[in-house]
Amino acid sequence: MKKTSLFTLAALALSASTLARADEGMWMPQQIPDLAPRLREIGYSGDPKIFADLTGHPMGAIVSLGGCSASFVSPDGLIVTNHHCVQGSLQYNSTPERNLIENGYLARTRDEELWNGPGSRVFVTVSVREVTDLVTGNMPKKKGKELPPRERYDVLERRIKDLTAACEKSGLRCNIQSFFEGLKYFELGLMEINDVRLVYAPPAGIGNYGGETDNWQWPRHTGDFSFYRAYVGKDGKPAPYAKDNVPYKPKHFLKVSAAGANPGDLILVAGYPGRTFRHETFAEVKERTEWTLPRGIARSKETLAILDEVTRNNKELEIKAEPRKRGLNNGLTKNQGVLQGLIKGGLLAEKEAREKALLDWIAAEPGRKTQYGDIFPALSAMQAEQEKTRERDSTFYALYRSAELLNAADDAYRLALEKPKKDADRDPAYQERNWKRLRERFERMQKSYAPELDKALLRYIMMEGAGLPAGVRIDPLDKLVGLSAGLAKEEARKKIDAFLEATYSKTSLGKPEVRLALLEKSAAEIAKMDDPVVKLALALHPMAEALREKEKERVGQRSILRPRHMQALLAKEGGLVAPDANSTLRVTFGRVMGVDSKDGITFKPQTTLQGVLDKHTGKDEFDATQKLLDAAKALRAGKKTPYFDARLKDVPVNFLSDVDTTGGNSGSAVLNQKGELIGLLFDGTYETVASDFLFDKKKTRSIQVDSRYMLWVMTEVDGARHLVEEMGIK
Amino acid sequence: MKKTSLFTLAALALSASTLARADEGMWMPQQIPDLAPRLREIGYSGDPKIFADLTGHPMGAIVSLGGCSASFVSPDGLIVTNHHCVQGSLQYNSTPERNLIENGYLARTRDEELWNGPGSRVFVTVSVREVTDLVTGNMPKKKGKELPPRERYDVLERRIKDLTAACEKSGLRCNIQSFFEGLKYFELGLMEINDVRLVYAPPAGIGNYGGETDNWQWPRHTGDFSFYRAYVGKDGKPAPYAKDNVPYKPKHFLKVSAAGANPGDLILVAGYPGRTFRHETFAEVKERTEWTLPRGIARSKETLAILDEVTRNNKELEIKAEPRKRGLNNGLTKNQGVLQGLIKGGLLAEKEAREKALLDWIAAEPGRKTQYGDIFPALSAMQAEQEKTRERDSTFYALYRSAELLNAADDAYRLALEKPKKDADRDPAYQERNWKRLRERFERMQKSYAPELDKALLRYIMMEGAGLPAGVRIDPLDKLVGLSAGLAKEEARKKIDAFLEATYSKTSLGKPEVRLALLEKSAAEIAKMDDPVVKLALALHPMAEALREKEKERVGQRSILRPRHMQALLAKEGGLVAPDANSTLRVTFGRVMGVDSKDGITFKPQTTLQGVLDKHTGKDEFDATQKLLDAAKALRAGKKTPYFDARLKDVPVNFLSDVDTTGGNSGSAVLNQKGELIGLLFDGTYETVASDFLFDKKKTRSIQVDSRYMLWVMTEVDGARHLVEEMGIK
Repeated sequence: MKKTSLFTLAALALSASTLARADEGMWMPQQIPDLAPRLREIGYSGDPKIFADLTGHPMGAIVSLGGCSASFVSPDGLIVTNHHCVQGSLQYNSTPERNLIENGYLARTRDEELWNGPGSRVFVTVSVREVTDLVTGNMPKKKGKELPPRERYDVLERRIKDLTAACEKSGLRCNIQSFFEGLKYFELGLMEINDVRLVYAPPAGIGNYGGETDNWQWPRHTGDFSFYRAYVGKDGKPAPYAKDNVPYKPKHFLKVSAAGANPGDLILVAGYPGRTFRHETFAEVKERTEWTLPRGIARSKETLAILDEVTRNNKELEIKAEPRKRGLNNGLTKNQGVLQGLIKGGLLAEKEAREKALLDWIAAEPGRKTQYGDIFPALSAMQAEQEKTRERDSTFYALYRSAELLNAADDAYRLALEKPKKDADRDPAYQERNWKRLRERFERMQKSYAPELDKALLRYIMMEGAGLPAGVRIDPLDKLVGLSAGLAKEEARKKIDAFLEATYSKTSLGKPEVRLALLEKSAAEIAKMDDPVVKLALALHPMAEALREKEKERVGQRSILRPRHMQALLAKEGGLVAPDANSTLRVTFGRVMGVDSKDGITFKPQTTLQGVLDKHTGKDEFDATQKLLDAAKALRAGKKTPYFDARLKDVPVNFLSDVDTTGGNSGSAVLNQKGELIGLLFDGTYETVASDFLFDKKKTRSIQVDSRYMLWVMTEVDGARHLVEEMGIK
Repeated sequence: MKKTSLFTLAALALSASTLARADEGMWMPQQIPDLAPRLREIGYSGDPKIFADLTGHPMGAIVSLGGCSASFVSPDGLIVTNHHCVQGSLQYNSTPERNLIENGYLARTRDEELWNGPGSRVFVTVSVREVTDLVTGNMPKKKGKELPPRERYDVLERRIKDLTAACEKSGLRCNIQSFFEGLKYFELGLMEINDVRLVYAPPAGIGNYGGETDNWQWPRHTGDFSFYRAYVGKDGKPAPYAKDNVPYKPKHFLKVSAAGANPGDLILVAGYPGRTFRHETFAEVKERTEWTLPRGIARSKETLAILDEVTRNNKELEIKAEPRKRGLNNGLTKNQGVLQGLIKGGLLAEKEAREKALLDWIAAEPGRKTQYGDIFPALSAMQAEQEKTRERDSTFYALYRSAELLNAADDAYRLALEKPKKDADRDPAYQERNWKRLRERFERMQKSYAPELDKALLRYIMMEGAGLPAGVRIDPLDKLVGLSAGLAKEEARKKIDAFLEATYSKTSLGKPEVRLALLEKSAAEIAKMDDPVVKLALALHPMAEALREKEKERVGQRSILRPRHMQALLAKEGGLVAPDANSTLRVTFGRVMGVDSKDGITFKPQTTLQGVLDKHTGKDEFDATQKLLDAAKALRAGKKTPYFDARLKDVPVNFLSDVDTTGGNSGSAVLNQKGELIGLLFDGTYETVASDFLFDKKKTRSIQVDSRYMLWVMTEVDGARHLVEEMGIK
């Protein structure tokens, strides 16, 4: 599963009887009208212009949950998304006695709907405008020359902050986003709803059926859907959580179709794909292949082993670690798939060939050589420089990711340093617009923080730090813990254990009230605190600052090189191109279809309820609920249901399509020609994931849950008929 | 993998354009001429009569290895079979320094061909004659009534021994075999060749590619083929192993085709399927489903865990335990598949429905009621009686299977008890005709015996014995070890450990010369020995005898009931029916074809070399050899090979067919219309295995290796071109 932070969809060229391969493209809504000829070619009979209207139907119903996609499906603000996208809410509302992650949840009345907790929100994109000129135009010069990269960075940051502030005066949340490697910038205005509540999530035996075993796999039988509801103040405007808030009335909501998706059907997918890297250079992708991905895979495996060890036979720790483990497992499998696609799938070689063609094209004309000739050498030099400290830098950053308390102390200290400044001068991460979410993150932490987890993970990363070679070490850590290059492993472990024991037995940051109070303190007050975690954060702070400075320098440099790299690519290729995914709203197109994905196997386009029963073992990841088994039995005994497919002679469960999507697309609405919701996107096949780096026209397949399975489970299994009725289905 | 003791093939009814489902039938060769109309219907253009001629072509080339099938493929006695069928030879010829199980073996000259060791043999079926009347006809009466079952058993055993002895005067090995549940008996005359040598086995990275992970699975990429050569005395007659024996010149050998098998092709498979149980009653299959299979699965898992534990980090023990582990894993997966097929696949329910139809048919006419009415109640009563002690009996027999030394001591003692009798009066297992193979088994034991393995497995089974309830305990074991019903587990373990420690530290049976000497001793001499393993064997002997007596009584009773059960079935169904597999020569028919085997997936009919590369991880079961990777690279770079398939654009590896086969069919020749060898059968899919109990027309698929993969590996990878030439391929 888990296109959490995922995908988008391709316009196809379909000739009379043979289906052409998928085209790549996670299109910006405003690009869609330009794609009209292609859309018509593949049989789309609607008006492509409707997609460019973000406040019209259907785009007005498409929302982001921040990392996942979703859509409004009732006039009362009912939202449908993936089951794996509501894990945070299930965790927040779980206790050792009431395990919603395992058992799911159904609110029988609105009163029973559960607040997702701090930090959960719904974003509705309401405006997009190009601001390229305002961000990169009319750059100041220094002594008649281009600004040095570090100064250029500051100019860009300031302009983006100013634009953001101006835009947010309207009450929207605004993001100034780079597209096409910084060649263009757009300002996105988002309405943000903060009171979001859990309405219905099926039990894990349906919503997470197949678990990690089936994640990124086909055939698939996951009921990966759940429902939230957006709440607002009585005035209809976004408001903080309050018991007596009222359901939001969206201007547009999707009609859910009980007809589902069938092989060959044209589908449109609208959502918020996270990130793709299709315009990286060959050298960059090569480095990922040789270092970043294998390094990440090894680290994920080791982290998972540690989490398994620490949480074994401890239900409370298990619940606390669950979302983190899911995320790690998901990323691990995905990264393994990416690596396989790049190496065995030949995408790295293809990337090399394409870049060679570009270099040849540049070399072929003196004009081009002058215009683009310096780009690759400059990017290579930057990369070489960065590689020198990559092992240390990645270990340094991992310290913060491992230990929630360290991360909190660091956040609080940085906030305290920025607070005295004028808002426009602050680091963007600590501007006033982000204070609330910082506080929410602190509040939410109580659901995932456990000293056992923090310590175990920090020990692991510190051991990595202990093993770094001389010259590229984390000096403040060495000083604090007493480590040095070449120290025997056993010795290092002893010192780290002693340090962690002392630190976590003494810190008071484990208490939520102490942590929250940190956010109110001044930098001087924090600096005076006698808390070992705070001391650790402060000791690391100068090095973190130095690394950030270096990164700003690099970002400034890249802001010159990368748009020119993109220009060269566009000049050579021409035509309409979709920008890389960047968590903004996109639309993709494709068809319901299977694929010859592996040697000796064909993936059929659909799975059925029978497959759920076939996989059921009653244990672990294949433990269908008794209610589902009973409902299946009743169905087999002849009970009628409108969600039965006569051709398949069963209720359809999941389907494949050749739409182009990535992480973040999870929960994306799958629309038919009429703009009705016929399913939810929730994953891609293992053979697909390397498409983040180079689109594989032949093998890319996304995985969706059919609306008929959703509706069948709701009516026949889980007793959620009232929601089906709310969606206007009889 | 591993249809070791496996399968046979079905006659199909094919209409113009739609392929009909496979028909069941592992046919006796003499039944084939009667199938002429069906064979013609499915497009067979040859003369069906040739299959009835066991001494003609191609049947004269089809041989048994005892548990596996094989065939002659050169005038110099070259034999092709599965890689997994030569494991015993690889083990026998392996040392900690030379691991043939891992690295394979290639004899570059005949001098380098390695004797398989004692006990390896090739059987050529040269005659079949029906002897039903001689076995079951003209039964003596007792006081005008039928003989009681126990006496009937003795008559049958005596008649079979006499027939065997008469037949073997010709120098053949003869078996009198029951067919159709004892309704018919046939005498099979087999020429036995004892000097069999290993010629070529590819490394495990080809021959066992995919290992346990892929066993019984599709898509499959296993090069499951290997070569033996039969050697005889200089007079051309079978002779014991001697360095200067000469290659056997078979009258017939198969021509190996370089054309391989293609989707839709009609194929014929000839081999020695082991056992099927398609005529068991519903109650019997139900007992298997509820007790025998789950019990066996649990025991296999536990035994495997013990073997893993004991052999960890000990290369020598690993080699010793390897074939046993493979067998256990293979059986485990198969039994799980059978259970799934019976329960989820619905075969048990189908069995019940069919039996109900038979019972209704019997009840429908008074004549039938009289004729068959007593059969089911009588069989049920027998079964109920047997179930009372099944747990104890199965544990008792498992003692012998667990401990090689105990088994050897028991064998030697029983042999000694029988030796003084006239040969015709001896227990068939200890008649003179079996002495040599008993000795060979003793010699061979040195390659698999290790006190650590014996002790660990015996401890496990003894612990099971310790846990038996009062009334159904293994009394001699209780007495010897000091166990009793209700004894605390910890207590039992201590006593068993002490017993095993004392036994194995003192026994001298671990020495091969001591074991072999046992075979020469009289029963009195053995009884006087002061060896704790011998004492254990003698203590268990009276109980073993009593169980054997009981079994003889049951066999006698079944010999009356089961043929009548079969008669009822045949009377109701009519038509030409294939008997259950019983390790005798059979022929089956079918087509190369894929299958919709699982929800959401289609199994394509073929796999290719690309799939081998795709699966290659360089580790464990997916570690293709460097030579194979290099050869694949050369192929991709344009190197020509006659084994390339233009349609697949690759070298084909494995293919599926709908032939009806079972364990024992491993290594069976797959023939095309012209009687040429186009592949080797080596497995069935997981969805197939329950067909041993009831044939599933829709899902049954056997797995074969394509001759083109064999030839490509031999010529391009392993340097076995001289063998390809010997087979007459240029």
